[in-house]
Formats: sequence, structure tokens, C-alpha cells
Amino acid sequence: MSKQKVLPVVAGEACCTPLVQEPLSADATVELARMFKAMGDPVRLRLLSLVASHAGGEACVCDISESFDLSQPTISHHLKVLRQAGLLDCERRGTWVYYWVIPAALQHLSSILSSADPTADTLVTA
Amino acid sequence: MSKQKVLPVVAGEACCTPLVQEPLSADATVELARMFKAMGDPVRLRLLSLVASHAGGEACVCDISESFDLSQPTISHHLKVLRQAGLLDCERRGTWVYYWVIPAALQHLSSILSSADPTADTLVTA
Repeated sequence: MSKQKVLPVVAGEACCTPLVQEPLSADATVELARMFKAMGDPVRLRLLSLVASHAGGEACVCDISESFDLSQPTISHHLKVLRQAGLLDCERRGTWVYYWVIPAALQHLSSILSSADPTADTLVTA
Repeated sequence: MSKQKVLPVVAGEACCTPLVQEPLSADATVELARMFKAMGDPVRLRLLSLVASHAGGEACVCDISESFDLSQPTISHHLKVLRQAGLLDCERRGTWVYYWVIPAALQHLSSILSSADPTADTLVTA
């Protein structure tokens, strides 16, 4: 439950070239597929969005469990999968564990999937 | 194998609000999770990137099978999963089926995952 967590895929090789420009390497796909797989479940994806958009940028299970017809242990399990994929980080404070998204991880995925023409930005800001 | 395919999630509800700003609805997560699940396999994710970045924006199995130590039927199966998730579309031309990514689907996912501050763009272009 480290406060700072840097994904190997973010810290390592040249980051964030959209896959419409350059194919992913076999190594990069393993790490990225793990993150996409974690988001490949409707409950986990909704959980991720609830944590990501929660006031103050963090949430505990107590904040979000009422949005689901699931037990707190089940929700905690899904949060653990998201954390192990490098999408969330957490910290225990007293009774509760607080979760927040790792913005660099989301932005990395967002950049990889971007199909926007990178030259378009140049035209807008020129 | 329609030439034009519009994802319900893209055509339907208000699209592309980043999940750091607003939680996903239960309905939206089902469709989105299906796309993320399709990308949650290293072979499929690499395939998607090879099709997406292929010269001319489309590829047939004959173009990309040499990048994998897999049979063409296996590759075709993975391509079918990506197509059923709404990430690729395809068309048969003679012996081969050609695949291309659906840019709107990738851009939709990219926007959903964006953690960039939307006000930052305003500052840049002001």
C-alpha cells in the first residue's frame, strides 16, 4: 500500500505512442493487457470510475458500497484486483482503507488508445 | 461484416466524459467492460495494435500472422473477439478478410480514461 507507485510500463520504455501509430511490443502488451483485463469487468470498471470521480479524489469502501448490491468483502476484492493491475493505490487510515486512482496509469492508457491525429493539436495551438 | 459500424455506447448517451469527472453509469460499464475485456489479453491487444498501425489502416491475417507463433485460425478467432467487442470491423475481399480499427471506439475509450485536466486545454489555446 505504497503512497507512490510507478508502473514499470510508465517508467520504463518510451511511453504512450498511440497504437494507431506504432504496434505495441510483446513486453508492453503483457502489462497493458493486465490493466485492461482488470477493467474488463463491469463491477470493477464502475468501481474504478466511482473512486476516480469521488470528491477529494479518494474513497473508502464505506463511501461507495451503497452503489452496489454486493458485500464489502466482494467490493474489497475487486478493488484489490484494480490495485494489483496498477490502476489504484490505497492507504489504511484507522478502520478504513482509502483508494485513489493513479492518474499516470489512466493517462498512459488514454494516450495508447488515442486515435486523434497528433498534428491536429499543433494546428489548434499554432 | 458491415463497412460502417456504430457502437451503441458511442451513438447513444452523452459520450466521453472522463471517469475522473463523473462515474460511469451501470449501463455504460457493460459495453465498455466488454471492450476492455477484449483488450485484456496480450495476444489480442498486440493484434489490435498491429491492425491499427498497419500501412493503409487495414490488414488481413496474411499481413500479421508472421508476428505470432499462432495458427491463422487462432489469430482469426482473436480478431473475431475484437470485432464482436466493437473495436474492429472487417470485410472479405477474395480469399482474405481485411480488418481495420474503428477510430471512434478507440477515441471513446481514450476520452473515458483521460485524466488530463480539461481546463488545461483552454489555457493552452487562450
